[in-house]
Parts: sequence; C-alpha cells; structure tokens
Amino acid sequence: MKNESQSSLLNKKRHSLAHILLMAIKDVYPSALPTIGPVTENGFYYDIDFGTQKVGVDELPLLQSKMIEILKQNLDFRVEEVSQIKAKELFSSNKYKLEIIDGIVEENVPVTLYHTGDTFFDLCEGPHVENTSLIAIDSFKLEKVAGAYWRGDEKREMLTRIYGIAFDTKEELGAYETQLEEAKKRDHRIVGQQLKLFTFSPLVGPGLPLWTPRGTILRQKIDSYVQELRSQYNYQPVAIPHITKKDLYLKSGHWEKYAEDLFKIDTRDGHTYCMKPMNCPHHTQIYASELRSYKELPVRYSETTMVYRDEQSGELSGLNRVLSITQDDAHVFCRESQLEAEVEGIWDLIERFYSTFGYKELIPRFSRRNNEPKYKGSDEIWQKAEGAIKNLIEKKSNNNWIDGEGEAAFYGPKVDFMAKDSLGRTWQVGTIQIDFLQPTNFGLEYVSEEGKREMPVMIHCAIAGSLERFLSIYIEHVGGNFPLWLSPVQVAVLPINEKHHSYTQGIVETLRKNGLRVELDTSKDGLGKKVRYQKEMKTPYWLVIGDKDMEANKVTLESRDNGNLGQMSIEELIVKLGEEVTKKI
Amino acid sequence: MKNESQSSLLNKKRHSLAHILLMAIKDVYPSALPTIGPVTENGFYYDIDFGTQKVGVDELPLLQSKMIEILKQNLDFRVEEVSQIKAKELFSSNKYKLEIIDGIVEENVPVTLYHTGDTFFDLCEGPHVENTSLIAIDSFKLEKVAGAYWRGDEKREMLTRIYGIAFDTKEELGAYETQLEEAKKRDHRIVGQQLKLFTFSPLVGPGLPLWTPRGTILRQKIDSYVQELRSQYNYQPVAIPHITKKDLYLKSGHWEKYAEDLFKIDTRDGHTYCMKPMNCPHHTQIYASELRSYKELPVRYSETTMVYRDEQSGELSGLNRVLSITQDDAHVFCRESQLEAEVEGIWDLIERFYSTFGYKELIPRFSRRNNEPKYKGSDEIWQKAEGAIKNLIEKKSNNNWIDGEGEAAFYGPKVDFMAKDSLGRTWQVGTIQIDFLQPTNFGLEYVSEEGKREMPVMIHCAIAGSLERFLSIYIEHVGGNFPLWLSPVQVAVLPINEKHHSYTQGIVETLRKNGLRVELDTSKDGLGKKVRYQKEMKTPYWLVIGDKDMEANKVTLESRDNGNLGQMSIEELIVKLGEEVTKKI
Repeated sequence: MKNESQSSLLNKKRHSLAHILLMAIKDVYPSALPTIGPVTENGFYYDIDFGTQKVGVDELPLLQSKMIEILKQNLDFRVEEVSQIKAKELFSSNKYKLEIIDGIVEENVPVTLYHTGDTFFDLCEGPHVENTSLIAIDSFKLEKVAGAYWRGDEKREMLTRIYGIAFDTKEELGAYETQLEEAKKRDHRIVGQQLKLFTFSPLVGPGLPLWTPRGTILRQKIDSYVQELRSQYNYQPVAIPHITKKDLYLKSGHWEKYAEDLFKIDTRDGHTYCMKPMNCPHHTQIYASELRSYKELPVRYSETTMVYRDEQSGELSGLNRVLSITQDDAHVFCRESQLEAEVEGIWDLIERFYSTFGYKELIPRFSRRNNEPKYKGSDEIWQKAEGAIKNLIEKKSNNNWIDGEGEAAFYGPKVDFMAKDSLGRTWQVGTIQIDFLQPTNFGLEYVSEEGKREMPVMIHCAIAGSLERFLSIYIEHVGGNFPLWLSPVQVAVLPINEKHHSYTQGIVETLRKNGLRVELDTSKDGLGKKVRYQKEMKTPYWLVIGDKDMEANKVTLESRDNGNLGQMSIEELIVKLGEEVTKKI
Repeated sequence: MKNESQSSLLNKKRHSLAHILLMAIKDVYPSALPTIGPVTENGFYYDIDFGTQKVGVDELPLLQSKMIEILKQNLDFRVEEVSQIKAKELFSSNKYKLEIIDGIVEENVPVTLYHTGDTFFDLCEGPHVENTSLIAIDSFKLEKVAGAYWRGDEKREMLTRIYGIAFDTKEELGAYETQLEEAKKRDHRIVGQQLKLFTFSPLVGPGLPLWTPRGTILRQKIDSYVQELRSQYNYQPVAIPHITKKDLYLKSGHWEKYAEDLFKIDTRDGHTYCMKPMNCPHHTQIYASELRSYKELPVRYSETTMVYRDEQSGELSGLNRVLSITQDDAHVFCRESQLEAEVEGIWDLIERFYSTFGYKELIPRFSRRNNEPKYKGSDEIWQKAEGAIKNLIEKKSNNNWIDGEGEAAFYGPKVDFMAKDSLGRTWQVGTIQIDFLQPTNFGLEYVSEEGKREMPVMIHCAIAGSLERFLSIYIEHVGGNFPLWLSPVQVAVLPINEKHHSYTQGIVETLRKNGLRVELDTSKDGLGKKVRYQKEMKTPYWLVIGDKDMEANKVTLESRDNGNLGQMSIEELIVKLGEEVTKKI
C-alpha cells in the first residue's frame, strides 16, 4: 500500500524554487507583479504580470543564472504571521495579491509570509526548505513560457507563466529530460500522422478524429480482442442508439448533476433529446424489458459504442481529449452474493488484457468510503462490496496497491488500475465501478427463489476504457512499433525489379489467403527507397524478393526489430507469422 | 422493362368505388360532407365530415350492402365540364369542396364533375369505368375506419376516413386478404417482441430501438456477412464520429436542402454541430486527408454506423421508421474509366447478398435523367455513367428491369433493386448511387499519369441499406423462422429429467466449443413444455436427451422445420449443423 504526500521534501524544493524564480524576476524586472507560484507534477511555475514588457524563452537563461546565484547565497526561509490589514499594506501596489488576501474569507485570521534571506518575502502558505543550500543548483531548469489568464478566467488579465522542472538530483533531472525527449518523438499526434492512423478535418471540427483504414484496423483488432476475452466470461453484446429523450437522465439522476456536459438536441416536435455521455442508463432499459429471475443472473451486457461529451474546444488535443469517445463498455447486473466472483472475473480480464500490451505493472487503486455522510446505499451493502474488493486485493495485489480512502463515488466503491508504460509514466487504465444507485433509480429487480422482488447490484467495467485514450497511450508506449497482430500492414513484399513481379504476386496471394495483411510495392523505386519507406511506416516485416529467391522458390525475410532473418520457404514464413499473431507477441 | 400506369382499369374501378361509397354514405347520412376520395395501393378511401355523428367499423356492413345495391343498378359514369362559378353554386353547402375549387388557380378554367346515374355527381378529375356493371360485386370490401386531418394538417378539421380494398376478381381479393392476414401474424413488431429481439423504452423514446442480446446477434451476423463480402471486393473499413460542425454540411450543400431534417446541437462554446444524417461528407474528409495518386484508385471505404434524422414522432413505427438508422454504408472514389467495373462489382455483391436471404427476385430500377435542366455535371459524364449502367442492365437483368426516366437525383443516376418477399410484397432494397456533385463541392482530386489534378467520381452503396429496415422486412419474410446461421439460439438441449443433466452438460460444452449458440433447459418443466417453448421461440433445432441417448452416447435431434430427425452421434450433429451454418441455408 502506498501513500502519496503533497508535502514531500521534493515538493518543498519545488515550491522554494518558485520563490527563487520570483526573486530573480524582481531583480531583472523590478516592476513585474507576481500572482501565484505553485508546484506541478514535475516542477513549478510562477504567473507574472510583466505589464507591457515581453518575456519569452530567450530570457530564461539569464533568469536561471540569477537563480543559481541566489541559491549559492545559502539564504534561510522563514515564516511570519501578519494580520490581513498588515498584509494589505505590504502588498498595496499588487492588485493580484490584494485580491488573494481579500479571498481569505474570515477576517482577523492571520495570513503568512515566507521570507527568503533578509530582503525578499512573498505571500505564501508554505511549506519550504529551511535553506537554499538544500537545493542542488543543477537539479532544476527553467523550461518554457506560456500565457495564462488570471484566475483561469479568459475575461481577466493575460499573465506570463514561466515553467520550471526540478528534481532532487542532476541525474534525476537528466533522466526526466531524456524521457521527455523520447515522449516528444513518440507523441501520438505525430506518430498518428506519420503512420496515417487518423486525421482531423477543420470542417468536422477538433476533438472528432476520422479513422483511416490503417487506424481502423488497430481499433478493430483491439476491440475484437476485448470481445474475445469478454465472450469467455459470458458477456452478451447489445446495441443502443446514441441519443435519448431527456427523461432517461432525469430518472437516472444524471440530468441534475451533469446537464451542462451533455450535447442537447431540440427536435422539430419540440422534445429535448441528449447524446449519451455514458451507456448505463440505456442498458438498464434492456435489463428492465423483461421480468428477470434469479436464475438469469448475473446478466452481463457488453457494447463498444461512442459516447459524447460537450468539452470546451480549447481542451481538445489529439486523442487524449475528444468529443467522440469510443467505450468498450459493459454492465453486469448481479446479486449481492455474486459481487466478489463478478469483480474477480473482471479483474482477471483486465490483467489478461493489459499484460498482452506489455505494460510493466498494473497496480490497483481502491477507492473506498470515508466517514462522510454523502454515500447512498445501506451500510450493509457497502461493507459487503468493500469487503469483496478487500478480499481480492489481498488475493491478487501482492500488497502492492494504493489506498484511496474517501475517493469512492457516492453511489459505490471502485477499483482503478494504474499501468506504467515503457517511458516510466503511470496512467490510469481500466476501472471496476460498483453502483448501488442506478438499480434504485430505475427500480430494477429480479424474482428470488422465494418469489420475492429483489434489487440487483450493477457493475460498470470498461476494459480498454476509451479506444481513443487507450491508443494515445499505447502508440507512445510502443512508439508506433505495433506488434504483428495489430500492425495495419503486417508484411510488405518488395520485388527488387520488374522480372520478380509475377513471382511476388503469387506470394502476396498466398499470404492474403492465410489472413495476413500484405502490401506489395511494385513501384519503380530502388530497393533502398522501398525499404526506407517500410521502416518509416514501422512495418514489422518485409520480404525482399530477388533472383536467388525466385530460383530457390523462397523468400528473404527482414524484420523491423531484428534485421535480416535470411531465406525461408513461404510455408515456414506462414507458420512463423501465424504463431506471432496467435500469441500476440 | 416495365411501365407502371396510374390509369389502369383496376385503378378506374377503385376510383369509381370511392364514388359509390359516397353514394351509399349520402343515402344513410344525408348531411355528411364529402372531401376527397382517391385510390390507394390496394383500393380506395373517402374522407368524410360526419359532423357530430360517429361512424365506425360497425357501420361498414350496411354501407357495403348499399354499395352492392348501387353497383347492381348498372349506372353509367359520365363526365361534365362546368365553370368554376357554376361548380361553386353546386357545392355551396360544402366548405371542403369550395376550398378545393378555390385551389384551382387559374380562373375561367372549367372544372369537371363525374355523374353516376342521374341523381349523383361528385367533383372529380376521373378517370372512371363506363358503367357500374363492370365492377364485380364481390371484388371489393370496406376495410377499416380511421381519423384523418383535412389537408393532413393537424390544426384543421378531423375527418373520418373509410378505407376499402378492391381487385379485379373475388379470387384476387381473397388472395390479398390471406396475404394481409399472414402479414399481420408476421408483423415484425409482434414477432420482435415474441422472440425478444428488441425493445423500446418510453424513457429513451419512440423510434429508438434497444437491441437485446438476441437481436444483437442477428444484427452482428448480417453485418459480418456484408463485411465478409465487402472484403472480397477490397473495401477498407473506416470509422467516423456521429457529429460534425455545421461547416461540413454547408460545404457539401446538405445544409441548404435538408437543414430541418437534421438533429442540431448548440455547444457550450457557442458552435452549431449536427448529428450526421449520412456518412458521405465525413468519408470525403478521409479521402482528402492525403494527396491521392491514380495508382491508389479505386479507394473503397466501408463502415457500418448509425445515422440520425429528425423524423416526426407520429411517423415512427416499429423498425420501419426510426430515428437511429444503422447503415452498412460504403463509398467508392474512382476514375470515370473505372465506373462500369465498380458498379458491376457492387451489383454482384448485392445479388450475392440478397440471394442468400431467399428473396424471390431482384429487379433493377434504373433512375436516369430526362430532359429537364436541373442536372449537375457535364453531359459527357452523364452519358458515360448512364451508358455504364445501361450496359450492365443488358448484361445482367435478362430484360427484366424498370425504367425510371426522370428519377435520377440531380447529382447522378442510380440503380435501386426491388426484391419480392415470401408474401409477394415488393420492397426497395439495395441502391447504387453515382455522385458527381460531392467530389466537386469538396474539391476532391487525384494525380493522373500525366501529373495533372483530376476529379474522382463517387459511388454510394449500402447493401442491407438500413439494418433496422432490412430486419423489419426480413423478419416478416421468414416469419421469425431464421435460418441456422442467423438464429440467436441455434440448438436447445432438453434433458428429459435430472439424471440426464450431467450428460447434457458435456454435450453443451462440445457444441459451444464448436462455435454453436446453445441453450440448456434444466428447469423442472416436463418435456412437452420445454419443446413448446422452443417452438414458440422458433429455435431451429433442439436435442431431446433421455436414457436411450445416454446409453448409446448419442443425441436425438428435432427440427423446427422437419420434425424428428432421429438419433445421431454428437460428431454427426456437428458436421450437419456446421455445413448448414457455412452454406447459410
């Protein structure tokens, strides 16, 4: 079990560096007005109003060297409490700090200043390191400059945000920069364009990817794999439309909470419809279309379908945030007594799925209740559900799990799975969410052995989650070097010149008959150019076909990952590739 | 080639019967105000304002016997031209007829009356039979009564519509009634509910079917079959979202023509999006995402996806008219010189597909230009496209085709296919539509051998068309008796009593391993009840397992269509069923 601390030594260093950055800025730009300077996931930033002065990346080296000078002075950080009135006097020439002070609701509560050395202080809650000497001068770097609105409000002042990255040591900083550089090269937006996987059209709009034939193969293969696994766990596919009358969400309770995130439609008949932002309410209506017996339970519905959420256009980027989200969704309706077995089945499914894609570890994060009164459903059912998850954590996690006390949804506990990619980045992937509320809201029931009406529990469980987000992570995880079973083109066939064309044609047909996705290059280009193109497109295998191959009735196989693998017969090739496809390696 | 005439003798009889119906009505209800009385596909109706009097099905026998009396009087039909002024005098006490006369735009144009005998006349354009004796008194029947708004306008008077059916002979009438009765039993809404294929929820709304696991199997199997055929013709699957910025339809020209049929969405950012009512504009954007070479053409995209159209709720019924329409759509981008070969490929595909489903004939209907000036695109390209279709009609239709002169869309000619079902009803099924306009509107191009930019032609070609409409027709065509390859449950296994349970369990597992969809009934019900249930659910096969089967290590096979097929080994069963699935019989 892990605990995450926001006041770690590293975070103190990062926060202190934000102050040091401000000291450097005030040295160079005395009239600059500071606003806020928090820590980030990998460093810190400070938002500054530079007035009419332009400050960009060109100014960062000077600021960085000033910061190093300051650090070398071994200055102490020291906290001081002052009254709000005193604080307002001290910051009387900075409207932003005054607004922050005004935001402290209770009058007569002291505010805190942090001093660095004798001449600098900033309005700040802390915490900080004790002395600047604790920060290694080569462990941080000013990274970039961006615009940011004061209070994140586009109607207010545009400020200049200076970002820094910071770690404990020079080595850690270096490792992070290397990772960043590799991630930049692997950026799924760049790789996606290079490999022709998807495209965006300004006429269709941002956040609405159009999947080309090559990208559609990826989507279909991943989805088929999910469905193949699901069928082993007796899921039944269903199909629903993408819209509904508003009434469905009034009943589910979503309208009240999420109405502004919904795409709404006013019909010519004067009704209000919405595009579905999730599939569960529709699925409950299939469950409710018949009176169910306990003998039918668990009922397991699965469906891969797009959901739609009204995100702000500014937030849309590549496949990370899209308006059209393809979920490989599923909902289980089961009895309380079946909960643990059902969650275990889904857990197994998630483990099998992600291990296929080569993620380094899959750590469960258990979102459970705390003692707040907001949770719906009886104590008894919560204890049963959390107990079931706890049992599975003990059985399966090897004590490597994250405790998310107080992170449960108000309608039930859940388990998220955290995967580490090849660049060491951690992503939240699959989720198992237990839900006591929707069965209540929709009045779902089944007839028990005693002929009584009882309520089923619902479990939500997407495996890939969203195909778009899954692919954005996976494309970067493998850098576009997809394994054979997923590759849009699996084998390219490259005749050296025209007299090999008819021989290669036969090979292409044989490979296609054996279910392989083959590309034949009969262009007039030289072999070097043909091979370069396949390398660019990250094709896993290509066959170079020349005189010797024709004479021997064989092919020469080259691999993206392992170089020239020599001559072999077409039968040997089919066996080799068939095995890789089946094993998904 | 067939020509369809609206002034056939049968239609004259039907129209005359509408007048005779009015004569009968005036006899019984002298104050009734007639409005209009046209022919229908199988008979006629008359819309009457009965004032405060209620006229329903109970009154039909009296009216029918009055009609027979009138027919027996051998009355002549006779036309008379009168001035509009005179007509208004004659119909001065009937506001509906006055409104019709007012609707005749040009003053001083005479209007026509039709007399029947000496005492009755009606405002009418004709044509009619010469004498009532030409209508066999047992060749028609008053069918039903319904409400209808005057002028189809829900803000105007509600009238009473009396429907009649009429044919040339008693025998034809009888055959039609038998067909009607059979169609009623096979109504896909009833069969769909009985076989648990789909459901509607009042919370989701009318016209939005929710597909249960059983119905989803049907959808998936039909779609897989389309995709399997398409892959033989080198179609490439693509994937698009269900919405777009309005800009796409402004560019395509659809916004101007069809804006009111679109579901429109106003986003939180203040943009207008629409749900796609068709897929072609999105697909053009995938084509346009790269500069194409002539070597790549034809480019063939396919995608099964839902489209949405804002139909009036009153028009929605079962699966015939829905808001969410699943199209197995495809678009081909090709050179003019490739048009004929491409259309032929699609034609083959459509023929192969529909012959599998056992429709009796598939007659092409060729929608071509007439001499109106509305058509877009050069004469040359129209001649080429129509010439290509004409060649294929000669090659493939055995001179059994329908000429739709003047029925081409303004953007290109098309071929519709008309299929006859097992009840003798004709349905329009697949369509091949050629399109010169969208490539122009979107500026699509490819680079020719000479390095010039040229414009491709686009072909739209859904095979099943809409899965909902296809299923609504097909369910009635087979009366829910799906062939083995489509049946949601293929084999039911029915142990006679508990001691056969463990033996049947093994059989179920073996069948499932061989890819069959199996249902096991271990309820305490007697065998008779178990079999009755399978017959109700129209399961194609069930196994009855008793002592003799266990002893012999065999199974007894019973068939929905062919009764008891006797004992056989499980291996024999798997071979037999496997063959039926593969052959789709």
